[in-house]
Amino acid sequence: MPKIFHRQQIEEALRHIDVTAAIEDGFVAYSAGRVVVPPVGELIFEDPPGDVHIKYGYIKNDDYFVIKVASGFSDNVNLGLPAADGLMLVFSQRTARLECILLDECHLTNVRTAAAGAVVARYLAPSKVERIGVFGAGVQGRMQVEALLPIVDCRDLVVWGTGRDELDAYREAMSAHGLDIRTTLNGDEVAATCNLIVTATPSHTPLLHADQIREGTHITAMGSDTRGKCELDPAILGKADRVVADSIEQCRERGEIFHAVEAGALRIEDVVELGNVISNPALRRTSDSQITVADLTGVAVQDIQISKAVYARLASG
Amino acid sequence: MPKIFHRQQIEEALRHIDVTAAIEDGFVAYSAGRVVVPPVGELIFEDPPGDVHIKYGYIKNDDYFVIKVASGFSDNVNLGLPAADGLMLVFSQRTARLECILLDECHLTNVRTAAAGAVVARYLAPSKVERIGVFGAGVQGRMQVEALLPIVDCRDLVVWGTGRDELDAYREAMSAHGLDIRTTLNGDEVAATCNLIVTATPSHTPLLHADQIREGTHITAMGSDTRGKCELDPAILGKADRVVADSIEQCRERGEIFHAVEAGALRIEDVVELGNVISNPALRRTSDSQITVADLTGVAVQDIQISKAVYARLASG
Repeated sequence: MPKIFHRQQIEEALRHIDVTAAIEDGFVAYSAGRVVVPPVGELIFEDPPGDVHIKYGYIKNDDYFVIKVASGFSDNVNLGLPAADGLMLVFSQRTARLECILLDECHLTNVRTAAAGAVVARYLAPSKVERIGVFGAGVQGRMQVEALLPIVDCRDLVVWGTGRDELDAYREAMSAHGLDIRTTLNGDEVAATCNLIVTATPSHTPLLHADQIREGTHITAMGSDTRGKCELDPAILGKADRVVADSIEQCRERGEIFHAVEAGALRIEDVVELGNVISNPALRRTSDSQITVADLTGVAVQDIQISKAVYARLASG
Repeated sequence: MPKIFHRQQIEEALRHIDVTAAIEDGFVAYSAGRVVVPPVGELIFEDPPGDVHIKYGYIKNDDYFVIKVASGFSDNVNLGLPAADGLMLVFSQRTARLECILLDECHLTNVRTAAAGAVVARYLAPSKVERIGVFGAGVQGRMQVEALLPIVDCRDLVVWGTGRDELDAYREAMSAHGLDIRTTLNGDEVAATCNLIVTATPSHTPLLHADQIREGTHITAMGSDTRGKCELDPAILGKADRVVADSIEQCRERGEIFHAVEAGALRIEDVVELGNVISNPALRRTSDSQITVADLTGVAVQDIQISKAVYARLASG
């Protein structure tokens, strides 16, 4: 019988795990060609609207393979249910026995997604972060910042949102972290005062334009995970000194890089992969005046790494 | 929290379900274009050798969507473990909440696979079955016959296997069904005496050749589910009066039809789909002298139908 763990147990286990380190190792293995990641499985629904993604794979010669299901059904909020849900399944790579079911309700997907933002900041943020800027006051808008706190000294934050209510809720939810939080409805203010920017929205139109981006800025775009979504003007990727993909293979098909290549603003050959940026310092920024952009679409190796770490902790406890 | 059911509960529920009817309805919906079935997800392992298939999808405007995982790791038998394993996940189509986990250990996959053979026999077997012939003395070699018993009057059976031990075990396991069972290591005997033949092996080379097949024979080939596997001489499909696929889309890519089209023995345009054979009598055999072949690769709609039926029974119990 598989072991079954619920969200509360998983959250407790996460307190004892260096998720960012596990995700970093995963990206290195991925870019070194040591991870098998088949194309993302996808179900799209129209009434009510929603999408389900199945991400799965394994690190070669590892103990486990992992299948992850994550869904987003935005109308759920009208029913008093969270929009996101999901689970992770951990199988033995030796026998295919199902060892563990993590009923994480999408929490592990959120945590590993935020951890990827932290990994990116560790290797691509300018040496002195003046102010952190965040587009999006939702779950990732919060969790990306929480994941940055151990990586970046700066405690000055400006958050852009689409309404006063969500911005007030953001400030309230983040009040325990000792941050100086400014909220705004004006994206210009973010670009003008921040040199580490995270976009975490489901936008289908660009939130930032190339002429707004100052020298020395790093942008992590993590909201766009389908072909339709787009947070950055393609010209930003054209202007950047370094464009980094979590997975070049996936970014050919979706996300900001896909849009910039389609628009002719970027050549896919000029994109480098995050795992290689981690293992090769020559692929990082070479001065604090350079502009860098990282595009995160979410790779199954993140799910593999976080579920393995959580299972190891829970199995030992 | 999802409801979680184990194999014993699932087997008990199956006693109260007309699985063949549920699978039949599923094929009709599938061929009518009312089912969303994305491409099969696949993980292949080499050391130890094994494969994992993820089949998933939904009937439009239905209550649920389903994700099924099934694995086959042949070396497991050396460890005292079954080669096959798996589970089915039932989600609400309205909210994407995970409603039910069926820890069926691949049993539901076996049952729905056998039920597809029964559906095929209902619509394609000759009016008088003289003898049932089975290639393969494994789990499907047994379950296909058990699923045929309510459909076909004939109780005379010949089973081909690769060794005396497995054939003796087959006879022992099937002793309760009141069948007249003959076992053989000679495939000629099956072709010469049977007019309803089921192939249920993992063979990579043909077990039957065109000149062996007599007038009026129906063959259900269900063992070949990858590109490498092949149970029938392509010329058999060329010689057949009617070739039926469970899914034309899947049979373009794998199974007997794939091989026969590759070999130039068959045109894909001449293949009809099982759901259409069920709903349109003109697509069945039109005389008892015709040769018919059905190629079953396994379609997610079978997983959807059986898991919904089991969940409905267990939720009401």
